[in-house]
Amino acid sequence: MRASILPDLGAEILIPVCAVIGIAFSLLQWVLVSKVKLSPGQDFGSPRNDGADEENGPTHCLIEEGGHNVHNVVRKCADIQNAISEGATSFLFTEYQYVGIFMVAFAILIFVFLGSVEGFSTTSQPCSYDPFKMCQPALATATFTTISFLLGAITSLVSGFLGMKIATYANARTTLEARKGVGKAFITAFRSGAVMGFLLASSGLLVLFIAINLFKLYYGDDWAGLFEAITGYGLGGSSMALFGRVAGGIYTKAADVGADLVGKVEKNIPEDDPRNPAVIADNVGDNVGDIAGMGSDLFGSYAESSCAALVVASISSFGIKRELTPMLYPLIISSVGIIVCLITTLFATDIFEIKSVKEIEPSLKRQLIISTVFMTGGIAIVSWIALPSSFTIFNFGEQKDVKNWQLFLCVAVGLWAGLVIGFVTEYYTSNAYSPVQDVADACRTGAATNVIFGLALGYKSCIIPIFAIAASIFVSFSLAAMYGIAVAALGMLSTIATGLAIDAYGPISDNAGGIAEMAGMSHNIRERTDALDAAGNTTAAIGKGFAIGSAALVSLALFGAFVSRADIIAVDVLTPKVFIGLLIGAMLPYWFSAMTMKSVGSAALKMVEEVRRQFNTIPGLMEGTTKPDYATCVKISTDASIKEMIPPGALVMLTPLIVGIFFGVETLSGVLAGSLVSGVQVAISASNTGGAWDNAKKYIEAGASEQARSLGPKGSDPHKAAVIGDTIGDPLKDTSGPSLNILIKLMAVESLVFAPFFATHGGLLFKLF
Amino acid sequence: MRASILPDLGAEILIPVCAVIGIAFSLLQWVLVSKVKLSPGQDFGSPRNDGADEENGPTHCLIEEGGHNVHNVVRKCADIQNAISEGATSFLFTEYQYVGIFMVAFAILIFVFLGSVEGFSTTSQPCSYDPFKMCQPALATATFTTISFLLGAITSLVSGFLGMKIATYANARTTLEARKGVGKAFITAFRSGAVMGFLLASSGLLVLFIAINLFKLYYGDDWAGLFEAITGYGLGGSSMALFGRVAGGIYTKAADVGADLVGKVEKNIPEDDPRNPAVIADNVGDNVGDIAGMGSDLFGSYAESSCAALVVASISSFGIKRELTPMLYPLIISSVGIIVCLITTLFATDIFEIKSVKEIEPSLKRQLIISTVFMTGGIAIVSWIALPSSFTIFNFGEQKDVKNWQLFLCVAVGLWAGLVIGFVTEYYTSNAYSPVQDVADACRTGAATNVIFGLALGYKSCIIPIFAIAASIFVSFSLAAMYGIAVAALGMLSTIATGLAIDAYGPISDNAGGIAEMAGMSHNIRERTDALDAAGNTTAAIGKGFAIGSAALVSLALFGAFVSRADIIAVDVLTPKVFIGLLIGAMLPYWFSAMTMKSVGSAALKMVEEVRRQFNTIPGLMEGTTKPDYATCVKISTDASIKEMIPPGALVMLTPLIVGIFFGVETLSGVLAGSLVSGVQVAISASNTGGAWDNAKKYIEAGASEQARSLGPKGSDPHKAAVIGDTIGDPLKDTSGPSLNILIKLMAVESLVFAPFFATHGGLLFKLF
Repeated sequence: MRASILPDLGAEILIPVCAVIGIAFSLLQWVLVSKVKLSPGQDFGSPRNDGADEENGPTHCLIEEGGHNVHNVVRKCADIQNAISEGATSFLFTEYQYVGIFMVAFAILIFVFLGSVEGFSTTSQPCSYDPFKMCQPALATATFTTISFLLGAITSLVSGFLGMKIATYANARTTLEARKGVGKAFITAFRSGAVMGFLLASSGLLVLFIAINLFKLYYGDDWAGLFEAITGYGLGGSSMALFGRVAGGIYTKAADVGADLVGKVEKNIPEDDPRNPAVIADNVGDNVGDIAGMGSDLFGSYAESSCAALVVASISSFGIKRELTPMLYPLIISSVGIIVCLITTLFATDIFEIKSVKEIEPSLKRQLIISTVFMTGGIAIVSWIALPSSFTIFNFGEQKDVKNWQLFLCVAVGLWAGLVIGFVTEYYTSNAYSPVQDVADACRTGAATNVIFGLALGYKSCIIPIFAIAASIFVSFSLAAMYGIAVAALGMLSTIATGLAIDAYGPISDNAGGIAEMAGMSHNIRERTDALDAAGNTTAAIGKGFAIGSAALVSLALFGAFVSRADIIAVDVLTPKVFIGLLIGAMLPYWFSAMTMKSVGSAALKMVEEVRRQFNTIPGLMEGTTKPDYATCVKISTDASIKEMIPPGALVMLTPLIVGIFFGVETLSGVLAGSLVSGVQVAISASNTGGAWDNAKKYIEAGASEQARSLGPKGSDPHKAAVIGDTIGDPLKDTSGPSLNILIKLMAVESLVFAPFFATHGGLLFKLF
Repeated sequence: MRASILPDLGAEILIPVCAVIGIAFSLLQWVLVSKVKLSPGQDFGSPRNDGADEENGPTHCLIEEGGHNVHNVVRKCADIQNAISEGATSFLFTEYQYVGIFMVAFAILIFVFLGSVEGFSTTSQPCSYDPFKMCQPALATATFTTISFLLGAITSLVSGFLGMKIATYANARTTLEARKGVGKAFITAFRSGAVMGFLLASSGLLVLFIAINLFKLYYGDDWAGLFEAITGYGLGGSSMALFGRVAGGIYTKAADVGADLVGKVEKNIPEDDPRNPAVIADNVGDNVGDIAGMGSDLFGSYAESSCAALVVASISSFGIKRELTPMLYPLIISSVGIIVCLITTLFATDIFEIKSVKEIEPSLKRQLIISTVFMTGGIAIVSWIALPSSFTIFNFGEQKDVKNWQLFLCVAVGLWAGLVIGFVTEYYTSNAYSPVQDVADACRTGAATNVIFGLALGYKSCIIPIFAIAASIFVSFSLAAMYGIAVAALGMLSTIATGLAIDAYGPISDNAGGIAEMAGMSHNIRERTDALDAAGNTTAAIGKGFAIGSAALVSLALFGAFVSRADIIAVDVLTPKVFIGLLIGAMLPYWFSAMTMKSVGSAALKMVEEVRRQFNTIPGLMEGTTKPDYATCVKISTDASIKEMIPPGALVMLTPLIVGIFFGVETLSGVLAGSLVSGVQVAISASNTGGAWDNAKKYIEAGASEQARSLGPKGSDPHKAAVIGDTIGDPLKDTSGPSLNILIKLMAVESLVFAPFFATHGGLLFKLF
């Protein structure tokens, strides 16, 4: 058995260097995007327009927008972008006030609960894993867990904020670039997405790395204590995701449904019409939900899987022997992931050039494949140099000898399972394949058959992803117990920068289309932004599949870490405590979904009332002579979403506390396992059903095939049926479905953090009776 | 510790006597129903019309139907009933051909698999629970399991067939009685339901009792072997339920949706219009789905929970000490249940009289409450006289001392949990309460909001039933381990005769309304049959809730028996084998639902084509001058339903075999637990969502409140939205939802029967690698 090839110093240098490269790359992308000028008269003088694509060049564009009109259009675009940006910022600042209160309150709770484990004693205690050694007191764990909790929350918050900033900075620029051709516009949107992706992945890694090194100054050799304290980082990231995903999800759909119900249905004006008072709120919603929400969700997964891997590794053979490099293996994987994603991004922005609309979707899918292939090599190298040839994992009272190539397999299986899930999701939600086409065809016999076929499609789409997740769990668990699961989750998330870039690309293009519509740009331009948007829809579905898959693995890893930390030897389904937990846990996703769906309904209703009020009371609004009051709509969405997220948020945050305190850790284990296995299905089926309905509608609208034309055009009976399906799908795919990721992850990480408290003071009901 | 008060001979007499009383009571009800004459001119001369209710008496009726017209109406009713009865019989005989082939094939499989456990050896083997004793060889278990399998299937088949016969015998009689008043009609429908209920409960008990006594002649003192062989009875009953529920569910909705899509939507003719060629198939479907299907489902649950209780009891202290009375405790509970239900039935048919439409629903609900209260006393007495004051249950390597009053609690908690589930289901699906009224109100903003609110309602309606099931599991499991769960399930099913009577009442009233419409009877009569039908809708939802709740408990009991029999000590979620089983098991309900929903779609499409063909090719059909070809529609529904049930049926039957053979008993345990905890939620939410949409539509149509009137009338936009919801709900509540009971129960009982085979030869994949 040889030690790891990479020296400890090497690991200590490699990680921050990769993180800093990632941040620098992200800033570079920002600079490149900012070169597209939003002030009239300058944008065609920029040095980048060196006539590379004459056909779509400035001349063509000037002609297209009609010479004298161009200043007007650019100014309009800038105005709209400002409105969206202001709306988004206003939402975020309102949200942050609540986040602030919540974080402080929860930080106090963490400190008090964990500090109380040993009665706030400040003296060292014998270690749980080795009674002959002394470990830091529980009060230290409480303090450092609280600190890392706040760090996780703040890192997620700052990255999400900057991601939103660049997204709302890039959308009008994408619209303007669309005048020069679809390739230019694509690059602008994609670069902006990459800013978000790289910023989040790199800063998440860097802060975690710094925290570990600072905490080590205090903890010294007590690595078990150190990495237990680090778990707070995951909880912080995930708590932020609760706000991002749930409040963001409610916001985006309240605005969307509210805008559609009055605008499209009652007033019969097109989508993204500037006369609709909710149109800015709707555009803000895309950013809030799909950029800030998705970003915080994946950041949470990333932080949690790193923490789960670290806490399990801290009691492995290299944890006990204090071998730093193998200990930091999860972080090194992520570091290499950043470099791989950087190279992958160049394929989209610099190596291949997009010349026609048809090339957009393949280009985005190619990103996924390239990053996965390169990353497989990266994992192999890291596993070879950063791990000893063989080591031992201690888990649930057993020990497991693991070879370094076995750990490579664990990470790789997670990585490739992610790709499989992504492509299956695409198959079930893209209108290029038969499932969505069948759903569209079902619109012939009305909305009812459309809904029945859509629901059946969502159910069916669970099958392969579940087998993919099960296979990766089986392989990684068999090879390296819970550590294998944690690194498999990390493997799936190792290409997070690319994944997020693709994902953020979607709402940016969507907004670009909206801006083109509102600024009254020509049909030609809108066709290009629509094509960008359509590709974004499919990749958004892929991103959601990815997020759910990784959430499942992460939750299982956290669950395993929780069970380890709570000193549970076995979670036996055949004990009543565990089984009722399992049953109730399996029910929670339904309760939670019922809440979030109702929330969207109530929030949308408030929006409908406001939009109606404006149409009724503001003279000249319908004629387009007066501007609507966008800000009030933004405010209504903001306030409603924050208010409506409280019940589902409370369900998520309080369940582990109530179950842990009153029923104890066994029942809690059951609840976690139950909500995990049931929630994954509900989330996948909800997301894919919604995505399929959306694209079935788009399929009929686009009329690209014989079948599609026989169902259309817009306004035909089948199209109306498809619109009903799309509206039903909105809260499913953008609110309740993705929010379930948070349910299963947050309950697991919260249980992990509070495990020592529950193990000591929990199970009150059983103690009393 | 005293022995049981009731001597063995007493138990051996009590059980068959109660069963025979039940059968006799059932026949008496049949005789009473048959007194309503279906031949014209005689029905008002019967001695029962002694002027007890002058107001609704024959004079009034004769005037109402217009004297000279009465013969015509009665003859029409008789004709329609004949057509329905013929259609139902034709479906059943076609089904039985397939059932026959399936049962023979599966019987051979059982024999071969179980016989192979000890290589078809005919010599006795040391017992598994006591190596110093000799037990009968595996070949004997194989033989007797096969016999009891066939017995279970045949008993279910015969009871279901007779139940259908009486239902299709009673529907026109109910219509005719409606002329005399709502009370008379109610009694006719309810008595006919009772025939089915008592016949099923009593013959199920009697055949099981006889089988045990006959098998004992061979097995002698080897009770463990005897009751293992008896488990085949449950498998037989449940296999029959696969055909009843799944094929029946597809049949009923294919006919319903097919009839509606052409009749209501395309041709704009009312429901139950005799010109619609699918109208008879639709009426047949009600009987096939809700009578034969529900009956076989509950019969399966009843047989399975009895078998699960017996197999666990056979290795308890009284099983080992050969105390017959406590051993037969589960059967004695059911015997007393028959007597309690008999008394309860008298309250509906003889003690209270229904005078107005408003009294129907309370009267049916009163049945549930009366039977539950009386049964609680019955259980107390049985527990006192049939059990020793204390005994020991051996389970999963542990032993548990149980007092007789503790076992009373186990049964009682199941019984009362059933009532709670029933009333919660009613709250969420009856339009007398706010949840359904909110869904109806959501129709104002269109079909999309209706669907969103309906889905959210279904999700929400899981909460309390799951807590009720969890509480009964916890109490009964804590008190008496898996035996507790099995008797809790029996407790929930102890009032099965009343439950089935109420349930079968629904489709009989529904058909009665259909016949009134088709026979062109007056508005007055139809109002009465509609009221009977509306009450039946609510009780149907209650019945479904009941069936799901009991299925959950039964499956858990079977699961426990399987684990015992397969010699598994613990089902640890933290082992990869079990966890992937759990995850995949949780996915199965989605896969299964996707299949059944698609099946309904394809079968309905075939029906649509045939109905269109008849309207297009048969001259005078639309004008009502020629009769449509009902038989072809019946045949299409029959053939399609049998064909379409093959894929979901194969999923259910093959999963345990494939998992058991290739992955072994641990993974299979995970699959069973996962499909149980996930399937219950999907089933409850699907049933209640569908029920709520149905009743929201009825709420708007009835226009009984200010709110309802503002949404109506028929044909208004909100009503159209409600109709879309109702159509979506049809396959959810009548096919995919209830079919899930079969999925979770059948997989569990199949695993139980094949447990020795899997334990010996299973897990091939893990053995190979």
